[in-house]
Amino acid sequence: MALVSPPTLFIEPIVRQALLEDLGRAGDITTDAIASPDCAVRTVMAARQEGVVAGLDLAALAFRLIDPAIRFKPVIPDGATVARGAAIAAIEGPARGILSAERVALNFISRLSGIASATAKLSAAVAHTHARIVCTRKTTPLLRSIEKYAVRAGGGANHRFGLDDAALIKDNHVAIAGGVKEAIRRVRAHVGHLVKIEVEVDTLVELEEALAAGGDAVLRDNMSLDELRKGVAMIGGRAISEASGRVTLETAPAIAETGVDLISVGWLTHSAPILDIGLDYDRR
Amino acid sequence: MALVSPPTLFIEPIVRQALLEDLGRAGDITTDAIASPDCAVRTVMAARQEGVVAGLDLAALAFRLIDPAIRFKPVIPDGATVARGAAIAAIEGPARGILSAERVALNFISRLSGIASATAKLSAAVAHTHARIVCTRKTTPLLRSIEKYAVRAGGGANHRFGLDDAALIKDNHVAIAGGVKEAIRRVRAHVGHLVKIEVEVDTLVELEEALAAGGDAVLRDNMSLDELRKGVAMIGGRAISEASGRVTLETAPAIAETGVDLISVGWLTHSAPILDIGLDYDRR
Amino acid sequence: MALVSPPTLFIEPIVRQALLEDLGRAGDITTDAIASPDCAVRTVMAARQEGVVAGLDLAALAFRLIDPAIRFKPVIPDGATVARGAAIAAIEGPARGILSAERVALNFISRLSGIASATAKLSAAVAHTHARIVCTRKTTPLLRSIEKYAVRAGGGANHRFGLDDAALIKDNHVAIAGGVKEAIRRVRAHVGHLVKIEVEVDTLVELEEALAAGGDAVLRDNMSLDELRKGVAMIGGRAISEASGRVTLETAPAIAETGVDLISVGWLTHSAPILDIGLDYDRR
Amino acid sequence: MALVSPPTLFIEPIVRQALLEDLGRAGDITTDAIASPDCAVRTVMAARQEGVVAGLDLAALAFRLIDPAIRFKPVIPDGATVARGAAIAAIEGPARGILSAERVALNFISRLSGIASATAKLSAAVAHTHARIVCTRKTTPLLRSIEKYAVRAGGGANHRFGLDDAALIKDNHVAIAGGVKEAIRRVRAHVGHLVKIEVEVDTLVELEEALAAGGDAVLRDNMSLDELRKGVAMIGGRAISEASGRVTLETAPAIAETGVDLISVGWLTHSAPILDIGLDYDRR
Amino acid sequence: MALVSPPTLFIEPIVRQALLEDLGRAGDITTDAIASPDCAVRTVMAARQEGVVAGLDLAALAFRLIDPAIRFKPVIPDGATVARGAAIAAIEGPARGILSAERVALNFISRLSGIASATAKLSAAVAHTHARIVCTRKTTPLLRSIEKYAVRAGGGANHRFGLDDAALIKDNHVAIAGGVKEAIRRVRAHVGHLVKIEVEVDTLVELEEALAAGGDAVLRDNMSLDELRKGVAMIGGRAISEASGRVTLETAPAIAETGVDLISVGWLTHSAPILDIGLDYDRR
Amino acid sequence: MALVSPPTLFIEPIVRQALLEDLGRAGDITTDAIASPDCAVRTVMAARQEGVVAGLDLAALAFRLIDPAIRFKPVIPDGATVARGAAIAAIEGPARGILSAERVALNFISRLSGIASATAKLSAAVAHTHARIVCTRKTTPLLRSIEKYAVRAGGGANHRFGLDDAALIKDNHVAIAGGVKEAIRRVRAHVGHLVKIEVEVDTLVELEEALAAGGDAVLRDNMSLDELRKGVAMIGGRAISEASGRVTLETAPAIAETGVDLISVGWLTHSAPILDIGLDYDRR
Repeated sequence: MALVSPPTLFIEPIVRQALLEDLGRAGDITTDAIASPDCAVRTVMAARQEGVVAGLDLAALAFRLIDPAIRFKPVIPDGATVARGAAIAAIEGPARGILSAERVALNFISRLSGIASATAKLSAAVAHTHARIVCTRKTTPLLRSIEKYAVRAGGGANHRFGLDDAALIKDNHVAIAGGVKEAIRRVRAHVGHLVKIEVEVDTLVELEEALAAGGDAVLRDNMSLDELRKGVAMIGGRAISEASGRVTLETAPAIAETGVDLISVGWLTHSAPILDIGLDYDRR
Repeated sequence: MALVSPPTLFIEPIVRQALLEDLGRAGDITTDAIASPDCAVRTVMAARQEGVVAGLDLAALAFRLIDPAIRFKPVIPDGATVARGAAIAAIEGPARGILSAERVALNFISRLSGIASATAKLSAAVAHTHARIVCTRKTTPLLRSIEKYAVRAGGGANHRFGLDDAALIKDNHVAIAGGVKEAIRRVRAHVGHLVKIEVEVDTLVELEEALAAGGDAVLRDNMSLDELRKGVAMIGGRAISEASGRVTLETAPAIAETGVDLISVGWLTHSAPILDIGLDYDRR
Repeated sequence: MALVSPPTLFIEPIVRQALLEDLGRAGDITTDAIASPDCAVRTVMAARQEGVVAGLDLAALAFRLIDPAIRFKPVIPDGATVARGAAIAAIEGPARGILSAERVALNFISRLSGIASATAKLSAAVAHTHARIVCTRKTTPLLRSIEKYAVRAGGGANHRFGLDDAALIKDNHVAIAGGVKEAIRRVRAHVGHLVKIEVEVDTLVELEEALAAGGDAVLRDNMSLDELRKGVAMIGGRAISEASGRVTLETAPAIAETGVDLISVGWLTHSAPILDIGLDYDRR
Repeated sequence: MALVSPPTLFIEPIVRQALLEDLGRAGDITTDAIASPDCAVRTVMAARQEGVVAGLDLAALAFRLIDPAIRFKPVIPDGATVARGAAIAAIEGPARGILSAERVALNFISRLSGIASATAKLSAAVAHTHARIVCTRKTTPLLRSIEKYAVRAGGGANHRFGLDDAALIKDNHVAIAGGVKEAIRRVRAHVGHLVKIEVEVDTLVELEEALAAGGDAVLRDNMSLDELRKGVAMIGGRAISEASGRVTLETAPAIAETGVDLISVGWLTHSAPILDIGLDYDRR
Repeated sequence: MALVSPPTLFIEPIVRQALLEDLGRAGDITTDAIASPDCAVRTVMAARQEGVVAGLDLAALAFRLIDPAIRFKPVIPDGATVARGAAIAAIEGPARGILSAERVALNFISRLSGIASATAKLSAAVAHTHARIVCTRKTTPLLRSIEKYAVRAGGGANHRFGLDDAALIKDNHVAIAGGVKEAIRRVRAHVGHLVKIEVEVDTLVELEEALAAGGDAVLRDNMSLDELRKGVAMIGGRAISEASGRVTLETAPAIAETGVDLISVGWLTHSAPILDIGLDYDRR
Repeated sequence: MALVSPPTLFIEPIVRQALLEDLGRAGDITTDAIASPDCAVRTVMAARQEGVVAGLDLAALAFRLIDPAIRFKPVIPDGATVARGAAIAAIEGPARGILSAERVALNFISRLSGIASATAKLSAAVAHTHARIVCTRKTTPLLRSIEKYAVRAGGGANHRFGLDDAALIKDNHVAIAGGVKEAIRRVRAHVGHLVKIEVEVDTLVELEEALAAGGDAVLRDNMSLDELRKGVAMIGGRAISEASGRVTLETAPAIAETGVDLISVGWLTHSAPILDIGLDYDRR
């Protein structure tokens, strides 16, 4: 599967806004006072711990938007694993710009690499099965597109990007509609032909109802391993099966071994710690 | 210390953008298909784990921007501790709007409450000293103001908000200037009279140099407890002392006991897990 | 199928920008000069020709954003058919605001009603079949969401909203991939589980290849009626069938009678004439 | 008369927003999956029907904003007539960018060329007179500037661009002011010396009143040919005369022959069909 | 002549941006620390010197956007003369909001009132003639619309609002065209029928050329009083005459007495000092 | 003290918006009509009066954003004194772009240079003392950052940039808190360790109270020279002293001679006249 970076059109407004957030009204007063315009530095962006890198384009853009004279040379691509201490990119040029953009660049790449690294670990834990790790809509406000990209960089797959690109019938929708079947009927009548419908089911009875009504996928939240296994058997390829709830590095293998197609994990995007990445200045 | 929520002027553009990010181009197709305009629900926003709440105004605004007819009644204020299972707010009104805004509202409040809760725990761990927990500029891009607010809600204090509201002379600045004293001199000459100057020092020699040059505060990164103690003694009230690096719930008490004024912690804003908060629908 | 208006969050920025575009830098200099602040008028928005109405919320918002004191009372809802000369809404209040917002309000509602009316006519022409009329991505730049809404108001259905919410493999994609099968394989490996894949096929051979590879839908552009019939038979319910190309009120019935599920029509959104709607002032 | 394209400052925000509208949150998932980064194509933008071209700069910008490596070479300039099947521009470079920007580029150029083509036809129909075709404020919301440019590209002239750059006293203004003379007096007293005043008159009596009061131009809506002729004679060069209402290719010549200076046509910008333009891929 | 305030649609984005500029990322930290949420104050906005008021709506909006609970009651309208020490508006409500918005509100109203006051003085100086004072395009960037409004509030009139709403042929345009006549010809052929053409002339020869070519207005920069008189006689009502250059309270009467229609003054908008306006707190 | 221009990230949105404000919807209709695309000119931006230049980057950007082919070569840097008639920059290239951007470029540089020039004069008037001239928050809405930069260019220093980067306790804050000491206590408890606290005092009693409570700076508004002298003695280096009120070129030396550290002057940013700067076209 090809990993394609988000287009510059997407990320430029975000990186620009992040820089302005940091520069405030007076700019980098410390650096402006200390570094002369002709002071140049050579730096290396390096990982302080092992992990999977994501966000090189955003980091590069942070430096470029501050000063186009800064040269940013990636050593490895997004999606690659970096060893502790290894270089991610070489950044050279005017000291002022590099010092001023450093924090914003690191804030982006360390956050996205944290998500990619967590995804990669979870994916490795289920690699002996056909299950795939997917993210949710529990993302950081304003950063959904790039966080979903980070999940892909870590080898995971994306669930829907928002409320509009697929239908997900949850328990409260079922309650309002008065049943799984009626909920699916209403959605089917409302949405276009290219919209898939997933249903969150609590019981095997609801599961059968969802399958009978032609749901494209079923999500089963917090089911026991035994129920999951029975559910997978009941589905028998008629729909995509997704499990969620209490997924950790420890529990993931057993969940995957039940035969589910997808394991969705909210904490990849809302609680994964960053990957520690820093900038080393060459002071020779 | 009064906890003052960010003004609506600040948070409205952020909440609005987060809602649009989730609604995409076609809106909440599932809910639109299932819930009729006159279907009303009563829900309770409740904590799934104990913690400190922050972000009620953002959650309320998410519902209000979707549909002004939704009533959002906080049960406790920001900054209060909520027990596991306890109510945070009651939300009632049109089902459509509540279902459509739920995820965005929860994404904000669970993230900010996660930061507040982590800050509160760290603050409690050093409560027997005069040290205060402070955050850094390692914040989520585009969300700095509200994340710094969450730190205050958790009982912590804020470091500078950006590159412009205080000077922080780091090791690379010192290297470029050719010494701590010259770095301070350049900054002093450049900035206004209401700007404080903090210096990051690596050694006690540099510390003395910073004090002699009149630095307002000194930051000491990754020093040993023994060095910290010596540093505090050397400062003798001439400047504010700040320690950082490897701060955890376990290490914080000992760091605080060295007598430092401030302990700054990056992971509060870049890696604190969310506080698990959900919406319970009353289906009577 | 419920017709749900786009949320105010969506349309407010568009209506606001349209008003500013018309007001320029000096505002409505004619009306400001002539009408005193306390001059009030009663007006009726009426159709000058029969058609289906869409865009009442946008028209209402145009008046409300200019002056909240203006009262806008719809007589019929979006999606309803209005007779020539019949009233659509009553608008009363300060003359200044009504005169200043009139053109923008009419520009929105007449354009969207034009799309809805054209869709309704085409839908009526195929009502004896199970085929549905769908729109394309050939929409007016910046207005896609509301134009797709107008298609729904006219009884049509929506194709994908953009490049990202469904995959549509076109002839050039097939050429680059080296065949239909390989193209589908690449897309399947790249996209999430909730993304449907449609394939544009030129021949029945390609159609069979698309079906064998598991395409969710097939689009057939500019095929003869005979080929369409054969294609529908070959599909046999394995995928959704869509026809496009040279669709007019005259040709649509025969195309629909071939048994295709969908008929997609670009001109609904790029070339449908407006529905003539005007504002009548009551000068008693 | 020189045809000057709108400056990039104008059109870049519009083209950028149109691309983001199409790319959504996940980008062009089909193309990203299928085309490798080094896959290059050669394409020709060609007219599928004869017409006048307008919007080359917008189309070029759509490709450039997606990928600066794409080369866009116009074959003919805006305002030129293109034969059916003839080339408009050659576009070469990375397949990904070209495939992703194609629809947005075509949406702009086909819409603007449609307006230019309709304007050119109408202009040709009155070319034996001194009358000129002008557009109105019945434009597509958010696209007024570029649609007015398209009218110029087709050989037409522009009426006012908004409510602020000229005064147009309509029937309802006259009714509120209590007469044509008083309406003109109020406007004259209110506006600057560089603002022209046009009056919409229903009768020859009102026309005389407008002329006596010093109106710069008079608009006569839906008058008979005979009334138009009488009006032109009555004006006798004292003001610019404009006719509007029920203007078609068939009726325009006779209207023009009455001697009016201008014929204003709303449908040029609200209902002109697009000019069919496509992209041909060279698959050698 | 009616004075009509700019619509809220215009000024809200400006006032909002000005407040955010002042609040920065952390808000009004002084007031937040000191004033409790239930602390209320009564204040009076009063003039510290005599002048003409303009900008009440902007000031009111500054308070309202900070806190809708603040009551802003104007004592006099825009355009009225206020005596030294006299009240302009009463502002009551929550202390927090009033203290936080005070500076932004005053920055707007004192600047606009400064422009209005200067305009009023100049207008009074030429009141014995038919000449009117007009402003130029030498306005504060981003504030042109409201500064031109302030000129109207002071009794002056507006020149064109930008490069697009009227043609002004300057000396360099004449040089490029090769003469006044050719310059007017080119512009006449390029612009719409509602666009007036003004020509800046240096000599009486050029003046005659401009009149012969049908210029609607002529601007004469830095001419002697004698030349102005001769020019006015030469024009004889065929065009509007405008003088500019070195206009002060002292020179204006003599310039006006030459018979020119308009006197344009750049410093009204680029160099007029503010009107000193303050907020008095009632501490009973 | 190094003078560092605001980063392009800051000023580009401002310059872009100013250009759009001037170009309106139809652009520079005069220049578009007269100058052919290949017409080139050579111009010199020159001072019409002696002063200190500020804003070269903004002027350069205005030309560059209109047409990247325009070459802008500064002759002197920001902060330098220019003699009457001397060149500031040479600008060469396409006539169209230069004519269209001229006014916006001059509006920026003449305004900022006016502020810089006024600051330089005041600074010179107190050069025999250690007092420095500082600006206030009485800036032009939306232009604060660049106006504060202009003050630095003129040799002055900046007070706080907004309500959030330093605390300034004013008389009304003191009144609400119930005294200077309590006001300082509340602020100290609320703000971070890098925030300085300044107190506005009316009397020497309050001054002593502020010093005792540890205020970092004290502002004394409209005090007599005698009181200022006593205050400076009382402070004795314990805090920074600032004087304000009725500061003119005439009064400044005496105020400075009282020994105060800072003299803050509102009119530098709200009422300084522009520096007259123009563009001379070389017509050889």
